[in-house]
Amino acid sequence: MNHECGVLGLYNVQKPANKAYNALYALQHRGQESAGIFVTNGESFQGYKNFGLVRQVFDEEAIDRLDQNEPRHAVGHVRYAGAKDNIVSNIQPMFFRHLRAEFAICSNGSILNYDKLNHDLQNQGSIFQSTSNCEIMAHLLVRNSGTFLPALQESLNTLVGSYCFVIMRKNRLYAVRDPKGFMPLCYGKLGDGYVVASESCALDMLGAEFVRDVEPGEIVEFNKDGVRSHRFAPKQAGAICLMEYIYFARPDSTVDGLNVHQARYQTGMELARESAVDCDWVIGVPDSALAAAQGYAQAAGLPLQSGLIKNKYSGRSFIEPTNQKRRLAVQMKLSPIRYLIDGKSVTLVDDSIVRGTTVRQLIKMVREFGAREVHVRIASPKMIGPCFYGVDSSDYNDLIGAKKSIEGIREEIGADSLAFLSLPGLCKALGLSQDQVCTACYTEKYPTDLHDFEDFVQSLEVKKVPERWY
Amino acid sequence: MNHECGVLGLYNVQKPANKAYNALYALQHRGQESAGIFVTNGESFQGYKNFGLVRQVFDEEAIDRLDQNEPRHAVGHVRYAGAKDNIVSNIQPMFFRHLRAEFAICSNGSILNYDKLNHDLQNQGSIFQSTSNCEIMAHLLVRNSGTFLPALQESLNTLVGSYCFVIMRKNRLYAVRDPKGFMPLCYGKLGDGYVVASESCALDMLGAEFVRDVEPGEIVEFNKDGVRSHRFAPKQAGAICLMEYIYFARPDSTVDGLNVHQARYQTGMELARESAVDCDWVIGVPDSALAAAQGYAQAAGLPLQSGLIKNKYSGRSFIEPTNQKRRLAVQMKLSPIRYLIDGKSVTLVDDSIVRGTTVRQLIKMVREFGAREVHVRIASPKMIGPCFYGVDSSDYNDLIGAKKSIEGIREEIGADSLAFLSLPGLCKALGLSQDQVCTACYTEKYPTDLHDFEDFVQSLEVKKVPERWY
Amino acid sequence: MNHECGVLGLYNVQKPANKAYNALYALQHRGQESAGIFVTNGESFQGYKNFGLVRQVFDEEAIDRLDQNEPRHAVGHVRYAGAKDNIVSNIQPMFFRHLRAEFAICSNGSILNYDKLNHDLQNQGSIFQSTSNCEIMAHLLVRNSGTFLPALQESLNTLVGSYCFVIMRKNRLYAVRDPKGFMPLCYGKLGDGYVVASESCALDMLGAEFVRDVEPGEIVEFNKDGVRSHRFAPKQAGAICLMEYIYFARPDSTVDGLNVHQARYQTGMELARESAVDCDWVIGVPDSALAAAQGYAQAAGLPLQSGLIKNKYSGRSFIEPTNQKRRLAVQMKLSPIRYLIDGKSVTLVDDSIVRGTTVRQLIKMVREFGAREVHVRIASPKMIGPCFYGVDSSDYNDLIGAKKSIEGIREEIGADSLAFLSLPGLCKALGLSQDQVCTACYTEKYPTDLHDFEDFVQSLEVKKVPERWY
Amino acid sequence: MNHECGVLGLYNVQKPANKAYNALYALQHRGQESAGIFVTNGESFQGYKNFGLVRQVFDEEAIDRLDQNEPRHAVGHVRYAGAKDNIVSNIQPMFFRHLRAEFAICSNGSILNYDKLNHDLQNQGSIFQSTSNCEIMAHLLVRNSGTFLPALQESLNTLVGSYCFVIMRKNRLYAVRDPKGFMPLCYGKLGDGYVVASESCALDMLGAEFVRDVEPGEIVEFNKDGVRSHRFAPKQAGAICLMEYIYFARPDSTVDGLNVHQARYQTGMELARESAVDCDWVIGVPDSALAAAQGYAQAAGLPLQSGLIKNKYSGRSFIEPTNQKRRLAVQMKLSPIRYLIDGKSVTLVDDSIVRGTTVRQLIKMVREFGAREVHVRIASPKMIGPCFYGVDSSDYNDLIGAKKSIEGIREEIGADSLAFLSLPGLCKALGLSQDQVCTACYTEKYPTDLHDFEDFVQSLEVKKVPERWY
Repeated sequence: MNHECGVLGLYNVQKPANKAYNALYALQHRGQESAGIFVTNGESFQGYKNFGLVRQVFDEEAIDRLDQNEPRHAVGHVRYAGAKDNIVSNIQPMFFRHLRAEFAICSNGSILNYDKLNHDLQNQGSIFQSTSNCEIMAHLLVRNSGTFLPALQESLNTLVGSYCFVIMRKNRLYAVRDPKGFMPLCYGKLGDGYVVASESCALDMLGAEFVRDVEPGEIVEFNKDGVRSHRFAPKQAGAICLMEYIYFARPDSTVDGLNVHQARYQTGMELARESAVDCDWVIGVPDSALAAAQGYAQAAGLPLQSGLIKNKYSGRSFIEPTNQKRRLAVQMKLSPIRYLIDGKSVTLVDDSIVRGTTVRQLIKMVREFGAREVHVRIASPKMIGPCFYGVDSSDYNDLIGAKKSIEGIREEIGADSLAFLSLPGLCKALGLSQDQVCTACYTEKYPTDLHDFEDFVQSLEVKKVPERWY
Repeated sequence: MNHECGVLGLYNVQKPANKAYNALYALQHRGQESAGIFVTNGESFQGYKNFGLVRQVFDEEAIDRLDQNEPRHAVGHVRYAGAKDNIVSNIQPMFFRHLRAEFAICSNGSILNYDKLNHDLQNQGSIFQSTSNCEIMAHLLVRNSGTFLPALQESLNTLVGSYCFVIMRKNRLYAVRDPKGFMPLCYGKLGDGYVVASESCALDMLGAEFVRDVEPGEIVEFNKDGVRSHRFAPKQAGAICLMEYIYFARPDSTVDGLNVHQARYQTGMELARESAVDCDWVIGVPDSALAAAQGYAQAAGLPLQSGLIKNKYSGRSFIEPTNQKRRLAVQMKLSPIRYLIDGKSVTLVDDSIVRGTTVRQLIKMVREFGAREVHVRIASPKMIGPCFYGVDSSDYNDLIGAKKSIEGIREEIGADSLAFLSLPGLCKALGLSQDQVCTACYTEKYPTDLHDFEDFVQSLEVKKVPERWY
Repeated sequence: MNHECGVLGLYNVQKPANKAYNALYALQHRGQESAGIFVTNGESFQGYKNFGLVRQVFDEEAIDRLDQNEPRHAVGHVRYAGAKDNIVSNIQPMFFRHLRAEFAICSNGSILNYDKLNHDLQNQGSIFQSTSNCEIMAHLLVRNSGTFLPALQESLNTLVGSYCFVIMRKNRLYAVRDPKGFMPLCYGKLGDGYVVASESCALDMLGAEFVRDVEPGEIVEFNKDGVRSHRFAPKQAGAICLMEYIYFARPDSTVDGLNVHQARYQTGMELARESAVDCDWVIGVPDSALAAAQGYAQAAGLPLQSGLIKNKYSGRSFIEPTNQKRRLAVQMKLSPIRYLIDGKSVTLVDDSIVRGTTVRQLIKMVREFGAREVHVRIASPKMIGPCFYGVDSSDYNDLIGAKKSIEGIREEIGADSLAFLSLPGLCKALGLSQDQVCTACYTEKYPTDLHDFEDFVQSLEVKKVPERWY
Repeated sequence: MNHECGVLGLYNVQKPANKAYNALYALQHRGQESAGIFVTNGESFQGYKNFGLVRQVFDEEAIDRLDQNEPRHAVGHVRYAGAKDNIVSNIQPMFFRHLRAEFAICSNGSILNYDKLNHDLQNQGSIFQSTSNCEIMAHLLVRNSGTFLPALQESLNTLVGSYCFVIMRKNRLYAVRDPKGFMPLCYGKLGDGYVVASESCALDMLGAEFVRDVEPGEIVEFNKDGVRSHRFAPKQAGAICLMEYIYFARPDSTVDGLNVHQARYQTGMELARESAVDCDWVIGVPDSALAAAQGYAQAAGLPLQSGLIKNKYSGRSFIEPTNQKRRLAVQMKLSPIRYLIDGKSVTLVDDSIVRGTTVRQLIKMVREFGAREVHVRIASPKMIGPCFYGVDSSDYNDLIGAKKSIEGIREEIGADSLAFLSLPGLCKALGLSQDQVCTACYTEKYPTDLHDFEDFVQSLEVKKVPERWY
């Protein structure tokens, strides 16, 4: 049910498995726990998927075997999973056979009325083998009457939450983005065919020409007659997840018209306007906060330095499941440059604070390298509420911003000063109004009904800290 | 849909994942392509499965994690799969959630009306993600009315073919064997709990006490009140697969009251009575024909020698999918003892001839080692028909016995003489009447309707050789 | 310094690395911890070696790379190592460059004056990077004057102990066997070239024609003029290690004119003549004692059964280093056939008893399967002394035969009766006089001076049990 | 014989293997093909080494085993090797036993009179198993008279070339840097003990306090009395390899008093002063040229952007041996940010041009993303001569700067303009005079005799292009 997955579709291309491999490689940052590709030649489907990185799941032989019967279309997936859902049955894409249609699906996002839909479908005789959105969608599809497209539209209208789907039938491909457009999805042209992907960086990897983002509430259908747009929900203000700009997406991707690197740079500039503090050096925390640090230094007129070096030989700490590994990861992966820090006043610019453990370790380490003052500037607002749309910060107990004031956080992490970018500032930096984005984790104003999570949210009301940050 | 899988169930034992691991290890010969274990503590289910041998899929940590929430029951599976079905969705056990029941299933065997059932279920809205019998069963179960047991009975009555199922609910375990009892299934007592397994060797591995075989057409239910037997089909003459005795099962297993090693020994004795030929040495082909060779030599009063040595460092040739590998495998794995063969007349006793490629390579090699005469005696009848119940010899084109007379086979494989055990001889050796066994591959008399395969069989009528061997 | 290694040489053959791979595969039982191949095309040397089984160290690409510059000769090695010597520097073959000769060496065996030679060579300026015999030999070679052959002869005359060497120069290959011929070494003809190997099974694997064993004290030289024999020690009574026949060598190998399988069969017959005991079944312990059990049953007129089944999916317990693993290995790898054992009196025929732990576990297991009586017959004499020539039973403290009488052992292992084959009986079975074999582990009469081990042996004098078994 | 290796020594610390593991992890960028650690407790030595990254060679168990006998000292090594030398015998550290001393050595660098020394030593009876400097040193050491230190001094005086050695005896550790100080080596204090390492980043990883660089021509000895400095060559102008600052070393390391990141930043500034060109964006090529790009943009007053994103999931292209892989690596690892490039004039700042293939691919890719103009600025001089001191650009045929003028290179790589930093400019940026650095690859003025390579260099005289760039 997690957000960070990468979805992919290819319509009418040669060697689609080979292309899917390269495109998934570009989407690898969206999920490292499993990968899969299904292809079809218009008659039958073939697929392979397993736990592991794209390059671990597939070798040349596996890709060649998928491409051997002259398939023309493909769907592919890279998956990030919490520990609990890390089971073989959840690996995507999923392939479903039913009289009315055979199709392969991949998806990301989080269906908030999953439990109800699941319950209703079971009442009608559906059985479930996974906890995947794909399975919900497959059951809905075959239960809805009429031809495929109306069934798909009807099915989508029963879903509440954040999601993208790419659905491959023998001769058609559908790309779907939820009515709020929580997560990115775009498509491009590749020769006579098309590529759909979570991020435009996958299009670039294939040399495809970007066409446009799929719109919230839109189904884009690719078939032998070309591209057709269908709607299943009216045009409305979207709610793109701000974390895509702040943390998730690759800097070379363009999401809803705004380049991610540019977005980060501009948040840094706005952050400087709001809360610049004097220091010897501005230092960005690699990798995702480097652009924000550049913008911050630029706007504040402060000198920027690459004072923290990332070790090439380790992974990405946010993505690792246990707390213990996260701590070790900090020490093994970020190395301060002593001469830039020893005796200096430094400002660390980071993209966000979730649990606070990483930044606390980091500040401790920077002080051990001799820093005189350590200021922290965060290029996003303080998170106070759990995300139910997919970001894996949903464990409310770990969210330091929900429990502590800014001053409390500052104390906890050991910084000399701490400031977050304001929500208005963030929106201004992105050139978006608050109506166009999901601000849930900063405001607890959820853009959709919460369904399965309502009781949980009510139970939070009592416990949470009264302080508000804006 | 293949026969050779191993199924396992554990009811009311401590550390069921640990025990399942050891028991699956004992069943490893029944399937090497994937392995899985699901456990329940009466409240929730947990499982892990993947491609690979039992010891590759599971390490100590994985087993400990499954056993950590004090589960008491488990199902486990080792799978043999043809190349086509070797996809991640087919790995067992499968876990299904539905309002009326959550359950994990593992199975082996071959459902002959799979296509019809699949079609009917799809007509009722079921969708399929695999080609596994488990999924058919799961859909049937939730579509049948009433409580679980009647639903199970009703479901089973719609199946035609060979199968065993082990089904684990939160507090119950069901062991099912098809009305003909094509494949073995037995259970034993372990402390206060029970073990169900495809072969008794798994019971021995756990130190469990053998109780009895599950009967054809029987459901054995394990619950807090103990063991209860239910029938879903009347008692009738069974049709145990003869290949279990001849080739598949482990020699230390006892199947339907007859020890497998003993069975093989006795087929060898009967073979000698039918067609003993004078020679310097009787030599069994390792491993599965060694017992038959012992019986043959004993009954014929001929000297036995271990003239073929199996290399410890290779696998099992029958199980490997491609023809090419099979040939190489012969040369790398069986080594003749020159002094026993050079200048000698030898009789090779083997368990069966499927394609004839292995024995041809073997005879060629033995002649290169100087054998003067090479006689071949096969401790089972000539196979003339494809098996639809699970044995992976179903590709009729590869079945040398379907295309050639005994003399034709002799010529093809290059033996000086060749004899097969007669079917009456085989039955006599096993102490069974022809009514109690499946003779399909020897007689083309199939104990059930063939359903999906009927057209195929009719198309064979024209092509096949008129000669009969009995 | 261990005995069980396999050495290999190929002279004047095409694709020598490819052939070496296949031959080493046939010698794999002599060492599983590392493997290596060096080749030469008459100008330069190339090699690869690493930890692991032959098939793990080499893939097709590695073999092709070695064979790409049209080499004609090769040396190869599989190594068994105790835990202490299991270091990367000891992996063979070793390649040495010196002005007077470049050469690759592989060896097995144990040099008893290693410490003295090592000390002397160090005194002369040699430095050592490993504990391998190869390195001693290389230093001796370059320090001896004259041409290569005299230097080799002179060098060998300084060695005391058991050893074989295969030495490859750019255009010559030398095969050396120590003056006592402790370990096997033979050669055969392959096309226009030659193969030297520890066991004849490697010749058979390549389809080479066996020529003869290398004689004790002989150097066989292969060069462009063919084969020449040189002596470095006079012809004398040999001292072939009896354990080669009893346990180590592959049954299809012929060692010094006697086939190993035949040897084992005959020890079983002799064992029966000496100490047959009535029972329901004679059961051999797989794999190495099966032939002895056949001979035993034949000579005793007792019925033989394969009552213990070896699991295909595990390794070889003797070879694993720690005591703990050895115990687990027994339970996981040998499965008794219950119906042959339950209520029966059985005689287990095994090849040897070293520590006694395996057979004790085995007897315990057989009794749990219902055996009424368990007799044990060992097809070799009781071991009372450590082996310094290579067999990895040299840890005197573990040798049960050194500490206990036969009755004491019987009690310890829990057998109803126990008998060993007498030494005279063993020799008679092999058709050899006691002068032709090494009886050290049975008699503590060591065929050579003990050098490095003298103090150790004297320290044993006090402790050892007075009882003698013959 | 390659330069880029990382050497490490630990004296008088607890759990030295554990610490060595962490320190080698920090040095991983200096060599990825093998890793090893040897430890001593003052009585015996233990070690483990193999092919692979540090984390692949060692697991927790391996480290614990090394640390179990309370060792106090360690040497460690990570190795980069060309394809030819990538053999198991070359893996370091190497351990040598000789009467006069047992010691473990690790080294980096390139001994230019290797052939002569090797020949002379062979003449004296030394034999060689590897092509490693360690082995040369070991033989020299034991052949020199007197105690260890004089022998070491004398030995070092026979070497010509670039090198560092760390030598561990039972109770002493020696750190050696060649008389020119081609490569970095420093030491620090850790509790009561010491750490020696190729780069200071390894000291930081352990929390050790930096003391100083080892001086050219110095031996630093660590023993129970503390630290003592010995000289084996007079103080003189050094010849530190400029590539350490430009490319090899980690930015957080300080080499001979100058922080590497700072050095790179300053080369960028100087580059701007020499050859700034107007453009829309200055873009650094990740990772090693990012600091230079920062300095360049700063000094030129041009806007800097992170326009090229490095994929987290790939390796480092320079280090991979074949040309083919290098090309694929570029496409898979660097992703341009389209909005920063499309229609823009960009200046790519890179650290060096060796073969020119990477930058050509890069420019091609950037143009495909729409760049209007692509200027290239290189923060180091044009390389015209092979390096014999260790940098793996020694294959003269691949060195584009040796064959082509700057204009020729510009054309070849497809840039709109191209400039290199001048050598005086480079020295000025680093605050060093040309006497203190090795300028060989820029000037073909080699700081030492070339010995083995003299003929090679003479053969180049004829072929090379007359043009000079400064």
